[in-house]
Formats: sequence, C-alpha cells, structure tokens
Amino acid sequence: MSVSRIGLMLGDVTGIGPETCAKLLAAGQVQKIARIVVVGDARVLELGMNDAGVSFPWRSYGRVEEIDWERPEVPLIDLENLNPADVPRGVVSAESGRVTGETLAHMTELALEGSLDAVTFAPLNKAALNAGGWRYPDEHQMFAKLTAHEGYFGEMNVLGNLWTSRVTSHIPLKQVAGLLTRERIVKAIKLAHHTLKAAGVSEPRLAVAALNPHAGEGGLFGDEEGRIIGPAVEEAQQEGISCSGPFPADTIFLKAFTGHYDGVVSMYHDQGQIAMKLRGFNQGVTVTAGLRTVFTTPAHGTAFDIVGTGQAHTGALEQALKLAGTLASSRRFFGSAA
Amino acid sequence: MSVSRIGLMLGDVTGIGPETCAKLLAAGQVQKIARIVVVGDARVLELGMNDAGVSFPWRSYGRVEEIDWERPEVPLIDLENLNPADVPRGVVSAESGRVTGETLAHMTELALEGSLDAVTFAPLNKAALNAGGWRYPDEHQMFAKLTAHEGYFGEMNVLGNLWTSRVTSHIPLKQVAGLLTRERIVKAIKLAHHTLKAAGVSEPRLAVAALNPHAGEGGLFGDEEGRIIGPAVEEAQQEGISCSGPFPADTIFLKAFTGHYDGVVSMYHDQGQIAMKLRGFNQGVTVTAGLRTVFTTPAHGTAFDIVGTGQAHTGALEQALKLAGTLASSRRFFGSAA
Repeated sequence: MSVSRIGLMLGDVTGIGPETCAKLLAAGQVQKIARIVVVGDARVLELGMNDAGVSFPWRSYGRVEEIDWERPEVPLIDLENLNPADVPRGVVSAESGRVTGETLAHMTELALEGSLDAVTFAPLNKAALNAGGWRYPDEHQMFAKLTAHEGYFGEMNVLGNLWTSRVTSHIPLKQVAGLLTRERIVKAIKLAHHTLKAAGVSEPRLAVAALNPHAGEGGLFGDEEGRIIGPAVEEAQQEGISCSGPFPADTIFLKAFTGHYDGVVSMYHDQGQIAMKLRGFNQGVTVTAGLRTVFTTPAHGTAFDIVGTGQAHTGALEQALKLAGTLASSRRFFGSAA
Repeated sequence: MSVSRIGLMLGDVTGIGPETCAKLLAAGQVQKIARIVVVGDARVLELGMNDAGVSFPWRSYGRVEEIDWERPEVPLIDLENLNPADVPRGVVSAESGRVTGETLAHMTELALEGSLDAVTFAPLNKAALNAGGWRYPDEHQMFAKLTAHEGYFGEMNVLGNLWTSRVTSHIPLKQVAGLLTRERIVKAIKLAHHTLKAAGVSEPRLAVAALNPHAGEGGLFGDEEGRIIGPAVEEAQQEGISCSGPFPADTIFLKAFTGHYDGVVSMYHDQGQIAMKLRGFNQGVTVTAGLRTVFTTPAHGTAFDIVGTGQAHTGALEQALKLAGTLASSRRFFGSAA
C-alpha cells in the first residue's frame, strides 16, 4: 500500500457521488490503494450511506495530520458546509455547486500545503458549479487557477489501457484551427508522455491525430498537418519521445484501441470524446494533467435519473482512486510534467 | 426481384475490387437483387476471377438494351479500355485511376440516357483517380459534375440500420463553422429524410449533431447551436420531418447505434466518420444522395495489402448492390430528393 494521502470529495450532493463513495468505502478495498480521507460534510457522507444501503464508522478530524491511520474508522475532515436537507436531489442546484467548488478549493489548499498528495472527486455537475459562482469553462481550469498554475496543463481521459489528451478543449470549434501551434502541440505531446510514464507506462507509444479529414489528403483539405502538426511530432521525436502522426482521426482510435498505442493526442474535444464515449468511456477516468496537484474523477456524471436508488456503479470511481494513488506515488509526475 | 438494372464497375484494377466482384457474381445471389451488368474491361473481370479462384461464363454486349436477361451468363459491356498487364497491382496507378474515372463517366452517361438505373462501384483509390486527371475532392463531386447536378447533394454512410450524412465534408476543418447556414442544414436534413424513405424507412427518425463541445454548453463554447442548427431543426420539423437536436456529438452516436434514431446528420466529416469507423463501417456502404443517378460503393478501400491473395470479403459490396437495388426501385428517391 502507498502511503500517499488521497482526499476524497463526495461529489455534488444532488447526484450519485455520495452513494458511490459510501459503497466503495464500505467495501474497504480502496483503502488498500492508499490513505483515503473524506473531505466534506458528515451529513452528506451519511446521506451516501443511506443511498447505498451501507453503514460504516467514520471519525472526524480537524486536520489531516491528526489522522490516526491505524484506526478502523473512515477518517473525515468535516467542513460542516452543507446540510443535505437544504438541497433538492436529482436536479441542478446552485447551492450544491457553490459548496462543491468551496470543498474542492479547500482540498486544493490542503494539497498545496502538503497535507494531501492527490484529490479524487466523485461526479460534480458543471452547470451547478457555474451557477454556484465558480465560473470556469471546466473544473480543470478552476484547478489551474486554484493552484496558481502558469504553465501548460490539460485534461486527459483514460479508458482501460488507452489514454487521450487534447491540444484544445472547451472552446468553440471555429477557434480550434487558429489555436494550434507547433509549440502548443509539442507541449501536449510532452504532457501526455510524462503523465503516462507517471502512471506506470514505461515507454509510452503516442499517436497524434490530424486536424482535417483524411489528414488533409496531402494538402487538399487543409495544410495544418504539414505546416504545424507534423513538425511538432518531429520535434517531440527529436527529444526522445515515442510518437508518430499526424494520422486521420477517423482511423487512429480504432488502431489505438486494438493496442497499437498507449495514448492518442487529439486536436479538439469531440475528436477524442466521440471515440472514447463510444467505447464506454463512462467507465473511464478523467485526470487533470500537468498541475502540481493530482486530480482524478470518474468520467461519468451525476446521473440524476438514478439518484437515491442504490443502483450507481462504483467501477469508475474506484479506477479514479487507483490512478490518483499511482500518480501521487510517482515522483516523476511532479518532476517533469509541470 | 427488381427489374432495375445496376451497372457494376469492377473498381480500381490495382485493388481488391475485381476479386470481390468476381466472388459475388460467382456465388450468384446478387443477381437475385436486380439485373446486374458489369461495365469495364473483360480482361479485368478475368483477372478478378483469377484473384478469387472462381470461374463463370460471361457474355459481352455492345449496349445494355441488347442484353438477354434470361441467359445464364453474366452480361458485360466491354469497354476494352484497360489491359491489366499494363498496370502494377497493390500500388496507386495514375493509369488505373484514369480508366476508373473514364469507366464511371461512361456508366453515368448510360444512367442519364436511361440504360442503367443505378451504378455500384467496387473500391476505387481517390489518389489514383486524382493522378489520373479526375481532379475532384471526392467522387461524389465528380458524379455531381458528370450528372450536371446543380442542387443540394451529399455523401451518406450506412452501417447496419444507421445512416449518417454531413452538412460539410472534404474541406479544411477551419472552414466548417463558416459554411454552416440554416438553409444548408435544412437541405441536409431533408436529403437524409428523403433518402432514408427511399431506402425503405417509412418514418425516418433523425438526430442532428451539434458543432461545438457539449453542444456549446449554453453558448459558453460557441453559439452556432442556438443561432443556426436549432432553428434549422425547427424549420425541418415544421415541414413534417421527424428530427431533433442539436445533440452533443460525443453522445449522440452511442444513442443512435442503440436504436433511438435511424440517421444522424453531422456537421463535418470526422464527426460522423470517427463514430462509424469505430463501429465497423468498413463493412458499411457509401451512397451519393440527392443526384438523379443512384451511386453506391463499399465503405472500405482498395486494400492494397491483400490484393491477389483471394482473402477479400464481399459483404460490403453485396450491401452496396442491395441498397442500389432498393434505391433504384424507389420512385420516391427520384421524386423528392433532388
């Protein structure tokens, strides 16, 4: 077992987050991955137990450093910041979103001061987060702001053995081509390389997707492949990274899923997400790569339609905790990805 | 059996086209779909038999009208335009591409003068076609030119029961957003609607994809959904077409593949093709929709790596012939899609 300390955030109280956390903690397997401390409100943890139909002892501490990891109870940092009775379930709630952001901000502080080695959060609702005053295009940009990060970073998605990252993400499609530069693509390739190494892939094999249909068909439908992406791939290769491309986006994922690559660097959001979601990415994990703090979360959402029914699956959250443990243990992650 | 007459073009001689045609014709099942006449060079047909390890009698006619459909031999319009000995196999050949274009142009003329009801072509190589002097971004635009078509038309892709079409196709990604107009999207929706009806789907259920990630997240990452795509969907609905959207591109295909829709109208090439190819679209069929002449072809390519080995599968070509037969039989196709 790693001695890394992972802060587990229960997710939006309106969704299935508390239930999935309670199920996993009751089963007790994830506590073998690393030291896990719940950060949130004790009443939300109790709600999760109730949703899940499980019960286990927990013990509240004021600070992570005070936790006695030998004790059998689940340790909790009780923020006393949300009474579930004040928030409706199964719908977007600004109040829930506000508290979600507040809790994550507090956990980020704990990580920055060295009390936590990683943060794993159960599903949050982006619209609620926004309505609650945390106005970022996505949580990754919020984390970058909270960690005062100034370098390159990015969302990565993991499904089984395949990783994907994106050079651009939550922006209008019409802005994608204008934002692609050789420098930016090289940074994305390096970030993928270092993150996969930190995750235990000793010699990551990366494929880089093209931007245009048929990779531009030799310049017939766009020239970014020859002008920008190809030179970026060459530059990364010269620095010793195993990468190739650009490959047509409509065939590279098929090749990657059959084991030819460990990761695909895509140029825009839907390029990678269409492929990943078709392959069952709801059971995958999302990682904020490149920051000083490790953040992981299940790829699936708050699943408002099944809240409180006890039907939520825990596989993706378990994978998110495992990956957080691996990344936190890897000094390389901190040494080279930033 | 339909009395429609389908012209079967053997594909690029450099590829697996002749083999797949010979295998299917030898098996004899496709001749029950419709009246099939091979148009090309007798020597290429013989080459296909040799590749496939089959043999059947064929009979050459000068004109389609002279064919005695009661006779057992496979009818052939022998263009005497390509000696296989002059062309290498398994590589791009400008000469083969030139003859491919010439043969398709001749078949289009036969269709326009009423001698053929549909054209099905075995795989051609786009680069060869281009090198051979047929300089179009894709064969669909060549067919539009050859049929002097001036209205809306488009490539459609069919895999199992799911159809996809695109509002834009073989253009640089950076041009996509600028080309989306309400009028163009309405035309694409109508074309999909009429083509699916012609293919036998009595009340096609269409989903329309968004352009931006998360369908723009309420305007946060782009406004084309609210400004252009949404109004286009409403306009089509008002004309009685069953369509809905815009839906986020990274989830709509999953929903469509599980039977919720008969067709997805996508905004750009890779949006639909990433999804279709991951689901095995190599076994699917490509249709040029909206022209006066029906054109169908297998979705897979010339498969240079297995040319002459007898390993080529015939499933996609068989589906292409079946679909050509259905579309040719449907007067609705000609009545309303143009």
